[in-house]
Amino acid sequence: MASLPNPLEHRHPEHEIHEAFLRRWSPRAMAGTPIPQATLHRLFEAARWAPSSMNEQEWRFLYAHRETDAWPLFFNLLMEGNQSWARHAGVLIVVVSKKTFTRNGNPNPSHSLDTGMAVQNLLLQAAGIPDLVTHPMAGFDRNRAKIALGIPDDFNVECMIALGNAGDPGQLSEEHQKREIPSPRKPVAQIACEGKFAF
Amino acid sequence: MASLPNPLEHRHPEHEIHEAFLRRWSPRAMAGTPIPQATLHRLFEAARWAPSSMNEQEWRFLYAHRETDAWPLFFNLLMEGNQSWARHAGVLIVVVSKKTFTRNGNPNPSHSLDTGMAVQNLLLQAAGIPDLVTHPMAGFDRNRAKIALGIPDDFNVECMIALGNAGDPGQLSEEHQKREIPSPRKPVAQIACEGKFAF
Repeated sequence: MASLPNPLEHRHPEHEIHEAFLRRWSPRAMAGTPIPQATLHRLFEAARWAPSSMNEQEWRFLYAHRETDAWPLFFNLLMEGNQSWARHAGVLIVVVSKKTFTRNGNPNPSHSLDTGMAVQNLLLQAAGIPDLVTHPMAGFDRNRAKIALGIPDDFNVECMIALGNAGDPGQLSEEHQKREIPSPRKPVAQIACEGKFAF
Repeated sequence: MASLPNPLEHRHPEHEIHEAFLRRWSPRAMAGTPIPQATLHRLFEAARWAPSSMNEQEWRFLYAHRETDAWPLFFNLLMEGNQSWARHAGVLIVVVSKKTFTRNGNPNPSHSLDTGMAVQNLLLQAAGIPDLVTHPMAGFDRNRAKIALGIPDDFNVECMIALGNAGDPGQLSEEHQKREIPSPRKPVAQIACEGKFAF
């Protein structure tokens, strides 16, 4: 069995950072094994300590373990390309965010941003657990998700996450095998500037 | 001089997680000292390794060091309540996100979520640097930010971040002194559920 590449061999930071940020990447090769509920709880635990506007904590996580009644509800939301590998995930998560402040019902312009912070905590915590991999996905049907999962209008569907034990990249399609490498990033100079917008 | 509270004495996780998630909080007491550019680079370095839809890397960070020409442009965007303490920050950051995919110009529904992930990396990296504190803010004028900083229409203004060396909480207003405590969170059961939406 082939093993997943080591992100630290592919990613070379320009400035000193904690290794955890480099170790988190989005493999597709998963083992088709179940994930203990206790592991899942550790991920939601990390998520909940993210900051949010007025401490609103807009994030909500719906999840399905493989081989349960809930699984097909989640799996069927995925686009075909994602289904081809995510069928080996142990858990599928749908992330949603509350669009208004609970205390006064006003629109909350930070609901997606804050939820991204919580998701990143979840992904980083997962990257610190041996043999666990995560893959956030935009490729699914958001409208069908709202109907299939009974998500109220006051909530926005943000992303899905496939979560599993690391699998054999050899099981992936040829196209996905080619992409099973930790991705590069733009240099810092292209994302940060002093003063006015200059990109 | 009073010192900032220790988040680990205020936050008690239900499930085992990396301490970094608990250590990151949002103090207001800052020392009014400059932040080295090298420190700022480490934060943007962490930010850039976040995941994003199609690896679009929608996030952009505009910043101003205190006592520079750019500073008042940023500082004047803040609401009065934030100005009262953020005047002691070393750096102010405005975070923006690209709303469309660069490769085809289509709307990108994940631009805010992905940018939140990058911001969380930045905040967590900062929490790992001794004596450095960060405070993300929604309380500023987004429309004036677009004009004052020349932010194109294709970019969304997401948040501001005050960044500084830890300061004396005794310098804060009475109201802010009362709130200078790491905030609590909802229990995991209120943010995660199996199957359909059930909150």
